[in-house]
Amino acid sequence: DDLKKQRAAEPTDPFSSDPERHPVLRINTRKPFNGEPPPEILSDSYITPAAFFFKRNHLPVPQVDPASYRLQVEGLPGGGLTLSLEDLKTKFPKHTVTATLQCAGNRRSDMNKVKAVKGLNWGITAIGNARWSGARLRDVLLAAGFGPDVARWARHVHFEGLDKDVTGTPYGSSIPLSKAVSEEGDVLLAYEMNGEEIPRDHGFPVRVVVPGVVGARNVKWLGRVVVSAEESGSHWQQHDYKGFSPGTDWDHVDFKSAPAIQELPIQSAITVPADGAVIDRSDETLTVTGYAWSGGGREVVRVDVSLDGGETWQVAQLRSGEKGQAPEAPPPPGRAWAWKLWEITAPLPPEAQELEIVCKAVDSSYNVQPDTVPPIWNLRGLLSNAWHRVTVRVRDD
Amino acid sequence: DDLKKQRAAEPTDPFSSDPERHPVLRINTRKPFNGEPPPEILSDSYITPAAFFFKRNHLPVPQVDPASYRLQVEGLPGGGLTLSLEDLKTKFPKHTVTATLQCAGNRRSDMNKVKAVKGLNWGITAIGNARWSGARLRDVLLAAGFGPDVARWARHVHFEGLDKDVTGTPYGSSIPLSKAVSEEGDVLLAYEMNGEEIPRDHGFPVRVVVPGVVGARNVKWLGRVVVSAEESGSHWQQHDYKGFSPGTDWDHVDFKSAPAIQELPIQSAITVPADGAVIDRSDETLTVTGYAWSGGGREVVRVDVSLDGGETWQVAQLRSGEKGQAPEAPPPPGRAWAWKLWEITAPLPPEAQELEIVCKAVDSSYNVQPDTVPPIWNLRGLLSNAWHRVTVRVRDD
Ligand SMILES: [Mo]
Ligand SMILES: [Mo]
Repeated sequence: DDLKKQRAAEPTDPFSSDPERHPVLRINTRKPFNGEPPPEILSDSYITPAAFFFKRNHLPVPQVDPASYRLQVEGLPGGGLTLSLEDLKTKFPKHTVTATLQCAGNRRSDMNKVKAVKGLNWGITAIGNARWSGARLRDVLLAAGFGPDVARWARHVHFEGLDKDVTGTPYGSSIPLSKAVSEEGDVLLAYEMNGEEIPRDHGFPVRVVVPGVVGARNVKWLGRVVVSAEESGSHWQQHDYKGFSPGTDWDHVDFKSAPAIQELPIQSAITVPADGAVIDRSDETLTVTGYAWSGGGREVVRVDVSLDGGETWQVAQLRSGEKGQAPEAPPPPGRAWAWKLWEITAPLPPEAQELEIVCKAVDSSYNVQPDTVPPIWNLRGLLSNAWHRVTVRVRDD
Repeated sequence: DDLKKQRAAEPTDPFSSDPERHPVLRINTRKPFNGEPPPEILSDSYITPAAFFFKRNHLPVPQVDPASYRLQVEGLPGGGLTLSLEDLKTKFPKHTVTATLQCAGNRRSDMNKVKAVKGLNWGITAIGNARWSGARLRDVLLAAGFGPDVARWARHVHFEGLDKDVTGTPYGSSIPLSKAVSEEGDVLLAYEMNGEEIPRDHGFPVRVVVPGVVGARNVKWLGRVVVSAEESGSHWQQHDYKGFSPGTDWDHVDFKSAPAIQELPIQSAITVPADGAVIDRSDETLTVTGYAWSGGGREVVRVDVSLDGGETWQVAQLRSGEKGQAPEAPPPPGRAWAWKLWEITAPLPPEAQELEIVCKAVDSSYNVQPDTVPPIWNLRGLLSNAWHRVTVRVRDD
């Protein structure tokens, strides 16, 4: 009752109608809501339950009535197309893709330790893996009039959310047309996450899922799709979500000089044990678990783990399914959209008082993670994919 | 005359009919011939002249009569296709692609410094950039009967060379079918290099050019193309040209555990100055030049250069054409097959006696090079793409 009164008294708070969130999430900011799960919960399941999937909101969560929801598809000859949720569900084949989404700022906290950067101080869990179902963007664009004539001049597909800032500007992004219309691109206008309707925090009723591409282009609460000769002019496409040299500072940064982040580089992290954990020597062995993923449909082919700070390395076991269950079918080349979970059990080095555990992953193009953070440091703290390191203490009982 | 007599006296030397090579090449082995150009010559031109293009031969150079040459295309319903050189030139559109080829062992010498590896001790120039012209493999496969029915079971395309070892086994490799038949894959059955017929050392009369993919799959003296459900069983596909963890040794290596190298990771190197060069302090500035390239059609978007061993970084100028000429048109996304040359001129640090110059590149998926060699060391010395470092001495005049 008190809460209701309070809300009634603050009618202008645009965040007052945000959904409830699971209390276990670690909150970065409440308004807009940005939170991530505890690492050991994240790696507990191959498919991340929506409740534990990181929530990265730029703006208040819009309230969308599914009955009156309309998706506008524009920029095509003939004036485009307007689709209801029912249209999306019934007029196009339903396609399901298991895809990992990662925030461009995942592991930003490692960069903040080198030198302060601008952005939410994400830990290692601004990443999740879900089963997304919906209409293929390719099918919708073809139905809306996309064809060889359009391919001659079009180069990008813009996405606009129904979430708006105080000036009425919606969240927006774009992806290359080639990704949007490719049969192998697997871009979805998704209306289900893990077999249920997409929760409000993840884009109800429709979000675009662009497998292999940074979270920021996977626009939630999708309102408009626009085929264009130009990249999106939105703030998030042009003046954010780009990578720069460690020597570039805010006085000298030229956002035009760098491409908008699309495909993400190879990434991995240790979820268990936590940094600072204490291990009993009598355990004799140590089990280390984590995740690994690469953008652009490049499959993770190996994860190396070190217990001595990177001097010597062992190869971890990879997993593409829930523990004890059959793995997912191997993806066709270039369409490995989902992460792999990994695990290794190794003898505790007999004399060690402290262990520096390190992981690094390799993808199918044999790209590797860089050794250290300072040479990839950048003023926005994006693309933080150096080796992940945790230090644990060994206790004699 | 003496030479002629000598050759007549050694009629069994299969290398006796190898072509002449430019004397400036640094020779790794003579039989088979493996050689690379001096670094400063390599970076002198955006298009590498054939004479200076690295030569990586596994076997003797076969003598092929262009009039009787036939390419066999097999594995397709209807018995496949036999094509003469004239057929390739006249029955299919001629397509030209500027593509960089890199040997999987480029920069192996950096790995040998850490711990001895098996393989040719390449320096930094087992890489080159050429303009290749020929028929699209896609067009040839379509003409030979490739279609949706074949796509249902086929997964790979094999290439067999006309070069054979003493047992009669030809050089061979394969690539994924998706790359071979993609409209955006740009795979060529090339009969020209830089506007002239392909020189014997580079595959006369026909070689396959697989842009973005390791040199080893770009089979020279192409004799057979086979569409298959399986990867090539050749030695070079199954028991060579794969990457392993630094902890894997010859007693424990399982070649089945790693994927055949296809797309290569981001790479760069400093061509000028050379390691150990001496600079005059009175020059006041230092110019550093090099190359940068990434596999899979990922464009090089930035090269960072350090004069202090990696403490601080400056951004180099990139170039996609000959010095003083117009650059090549920017490639569509995912089809950046050609390298970039880079250059930076920086003031000499006033007090420095010695400079450790370092370069590292970034590609359009924001993949970066690893900092150091030991963590990517592998028993075959492949995929050597750590930061390149050269040390120069500053001399007071
Ligand atoms: Mo993000
Ligand atoms: Mo090679």
